[in-house]
Amino acid sequence: MTTVCVPTQDERDELGELPGGGRVVVWDGADAPAPDITDIDFLVGNYLGGPPSADAVRELAGLRVVQLLSAGVEPWLPLLPDGVTLCNGRGVHGGSTAELAVAGLLGLLRRLPEFAAAQHRGEWSPATADDLDGLPVLVLGAGDIGQRVAAALRVFDAQVTLVGRTARGDVRTLADVPALLPATRAVVVTVPLTEQTMGLVDAGFLAALPDGAMLVNVARGRIVDTEALLAELKRERLSAFLDVTDPEPLPPGHPLWSAPNVLVTPHVGGGTTGWRRRGYRLVREQLRRYAAGEPLLNVVSGGY
Amino acid sequence: MTTVCVPTQDERDELGELPGGGRVVVWDGADAPAPDITDIDFLVGNYLGGPPSADAVRELAGLRVVQLLSAGVEPWLPLLPDGVTLCNGRGVHGGSTAELAVAGLLGLLRRLPEFAAAQHRGEWSPATADDLDGLPVLVLGAGDIGQRVAAALRVFDAQVTLVGRTARGDVRTLADVPALLPATRAVVVTVPLTEQTMGLVDAGFLAALPDGAMLVNVARGRIVDTEALLAELKRERLSAFLDVTDPEPLPPGHPLWSAPNVLVTPHVGGGTTGWRRRGYRLVREQLRRYAAGEPLLNVVSGGY
Repeated sequence: MTTVCVPTQDERDELGELPGGGRVVVWDGADAPAPDITDIDFLVGNYLGGPPSADAVRELAGLRVVQLLSAGVEPWLPLLPDGVTLCNGRGVHGGSTAELAVAGLLGLLRRLPEFAAAQHRGEWSPATADDLDGLPVLVLGAGDIGQRVAAALRVFDAQVTLVGRTARGDVRTLADVPALLPATRAVVVTVPLTEQTMGLVDAGFLAALPDGAMLVNVARGRIVDTEALLAELKRERLSAFLDVTDPEPLPPGHPLWSAPNVLVTPHVGGGTTGWRRRGYRLVREQLRRYAAGEPLLNVVSGGY
Repeated sequence: MTTVCVPTQDERDELGELPGGGRVVVWDGADAPAPDITDIDFLVGNYLGGPPSADAVRELAGLRVVQLLSAGVEPWLPLLPDGVTLCNGRGVHGGSTAELAVAGLLGLLRRLPEFAAAQHRGEWSPATADDLDGLPVLVLGAGDIGQRVAAALRVFDAQVTLVGRTARGDVRTLADVPALLPATRAVVVTVPLTEQTMGLVDAGFLAALPDGAMLVNVARGRIVDTEALLAELKRERLSAFLDVTDPEPLPPGHPLWSAPNVLVTPHVGGGTTGWRRRGYRLVREQLRRYAAGEPLLNVVSGGY
């Protein structure tokens, strides 16, 4: 019989009854587990908090599956003994992150911050903006987030090029990017942070973009060289929408806060009200598979 | 041989050479036409200005077609003698208007104005926003604009219901709207202004929406009852994105400028940089059809 552990009572309520029976306990991982819950075999990671301590994890002798609701798994990898399967939350936050990228790109393109400033002054001041029709947009990352960004922008006839790890169909690779940049009017960064992507958007990358181009980053701050971007913003050559920054959180007084033509949001791409509903849709499917002995989705390491 | 009249030199340049030959003259309609251009048979209306006077139109004895680049035709209807075909610019502005509706809806939903205010203060203040996944959205108008809004929102799994003049497939009619409002979280207004739609979004319509619902108007200001909307905004029960207002332009000191939870842009849905390119793509197709004796597109009245 499965014992499932979820981190909060709200998530307990979202999970509902287990279809195949079994016990559900609530433990947020902040303190040592109570003795009556050390028989947990399926643990849902604390999305809003962090992982438990290594000591706490060692007490969970029956642990077989850890299901995270985040795309990233880095802090959990060193904690888990051999034989524990780690699954990530791929797909839980893709839609809302893609949505924020589109919101930010359209906001910049249609000059919404300028119109908001005019509204604040009580001034009706029409001004001509660009639109997406025919706009060449480069989307870095061809996973769930990148595909959704591309689909939404294509509704408005943008000319979207997707860049993925491997070329397939109309998906290009990082090797093609330098040749594409001079004709690109907007870049949307949706790739995971890896050795290959860290610092990918550096001074040379930005310099290759034409005047007036836009950068949107909803992935990880360290993919973009902050100093290089700041230099381009201060020259008023490029504009940017950043949901992630380096450093993060952006400290008070950091020059990005007040640079021209930049919108900064505090890493809210994934943390929308829908995450719990989508996350537990995934958890229920994983529990069904686990009970039926079927392969789990989104396996990152291990394999029971 | 056709004589085509366009209102500005920029538009003359955009038009290029006529495929079947013919003469192109530039006249903006503000003054009386010079004697050597009264043989115009195909006139492109002045999108950025207004129509010529009735006297000026009467001097154009050979006029057979007036092609507008706007969706609305009201000021031109009383000017044109029988036998002159009037065509509107349907499709020229749909994409950019739909794009602005999506930008405004996503901006409200993802709390971008609040994050912009936090940025202004230099504060990293994450806050949970809603997202489109499963959100019930009612799109009034099932033409080019409404269809594009629906397509973009569906990329993010919104539950979109389209309302058109006639029921077809999954398109509902205005008669269905009252029953749909209590479960609607966002309304996007894209319908033309007609006797049926004037004042459609009145106090009763707004009162039927649940707390926290959003109103987006990119159509015409007089479709929404401004006083009724102001009352709902001041109670902080609804939020709104308005690209069009009543009155328009919104005068200095009008309470909409400073009402809570409202974004106002100065009727910029259609006036993007792409209008000339898209407009003259339509004009060239119409001239080809005119020269070949084929039926014109977008005919509103008359018929040569």
